[in-house]
Amino acid sequence: MKGQPVISKATIDRLPLYFRTLRMVQDEGIDIISSDELGRRLSITPEQIRKDLAAFGQFGKKGVGYYVNELKHRVGEILGLDHHWNIAIVGIGHLGAALANYQNFIALGFNLVALFDQDPKVVGLTVNHLPVSHISEFPAIAQKRNINIAILAVPAVFAQEAADRIIASGVSGIWNFAPVKLQIPEGIHIVNEDLSVGLSSLSYHLTRNL
Amino acid sequence: MKGQPVISKATIDRLPLYFRTLRMVQDEGIDIISSDELGRRLSITPEQIRKDLAAFGQFGKKGVGYYVNELKHRVGEILGLDHHWNIAIVGIGHLGAALANYQNFIALGFNLVALFDQDPKVVGLTVNHLPVSHISEFPAIAQKRNINIAILAVPAVFAQEAADRIIASGVSGIWNFAPVKLQIPEGIHIVNEDLSVGLSSLSYHLTRNL
Repeated sequence: MKGQPVISKATIDRLPLYFRTLRMVQDEGIDIISSDELGRRLSITPEQIRKDLAAFGQFGKKGVGYYVNELKHRVGEILGLDHHWNIAIVGIGHLGAALANYQNFIALGFNLVALFDQDPKVVGLTVNHLPVSHISEFPAIAQKRNINIAILAVPAVFAQEAADRIIASGVSGIWNFAPVKLQIPEGIHIVNEDLSVGLSSLSYHLTRNL
Repeated sequence: MKGQPVISKATIDRLPLYFRTLRMVQDEGIDIISSDELGRRLSITPEQIRKDLAAFGQFGKKGVGYYVNELKHRVGEILGLDHHWNIAIVGIGHLGAALANYQNFIALGFNLVALFDQDPKVVGLTVNHLPVSHISEFPAIAQKRNINIAILAVPAVFAQEAADRIIASGVSGIWNFAPVKLQIPEGIHIVNEDLSVGLSSLSYHLTRNL
């Protein structure tokens, strides 16, 4: 990436939140937003926002605010959302089916191209206009449809085996919903999703009100 | 809360991640962990970890590390997980059903006590040993079962109406999965979950490898 500045891990983790908020602001028809207002929506200090965003170039107009469309476009570019990654879901239980129907992925430019399961009762079903293929077909379909990211939504006991198969097929991004720590070789990117984090945050705030 | 130190918003947001990691470390049978190792697992600098955890008291042994069980217990206490909140899920589509079956909530001490939907085809079904009640029964059941937190897993168009009903029933914590910004009165706590954040992070890292 030419001219890409070094961005801290903490800033990177905040980028998807910036992107989401800018998308909401854009949907509300707002063209310019101040760091104060962005901060209020994100619960981040305006100073932190100005520091984070300064790393990507000049988007602000001093004393006015940020140009929403321009900033959103740039943050999306840094996040790589302009690549229109092809994603597959492995494990079509309740969670996999919910993810297959999740509209926000499409809104972000991700393409859902394949679904997989190992259960003969699930293979062959259609979820959100896509057929569920048997997991043994993963290597062939991954190559044919150029799968970049696999979403792992299988039970914990099957997760490592499924991850090994995904990686052996040349897919280098895994978004893991199974509550296990997977053994992943160098060069493979994994994001572990833990839904209990959101619930724990809520618990914290409720506790302060007792 | 007596003697509770003031903790920054950023630290609070990291607490559930600390808790999750300490739980994993505990499951691996590790008794003492260094800030370096915790940092490696969390992708946070050891300096930041030492600063975050210093806010809660002395858990470390200089040059040795943190006592895992003690620290996990204290972080859980600060997060309010020892309150064993009663939770209900509103909207039993794919996502609601997936959440009803999510084992991690139980592991964290949350009690799932009720399920609600408005679809007559779904009301009366049993999901994870709980019957699905009609949403009109929410006020009565909320009182009877002392619901503290409602998980909102309805389609976006029904989310505000459902939130209004939940709040009118005296429930003050909402974990919202619907991709809309809800109008919430003072004193109600809401955490908006956006699953596309994890996928965007993965996109960022994959982009760096092109």
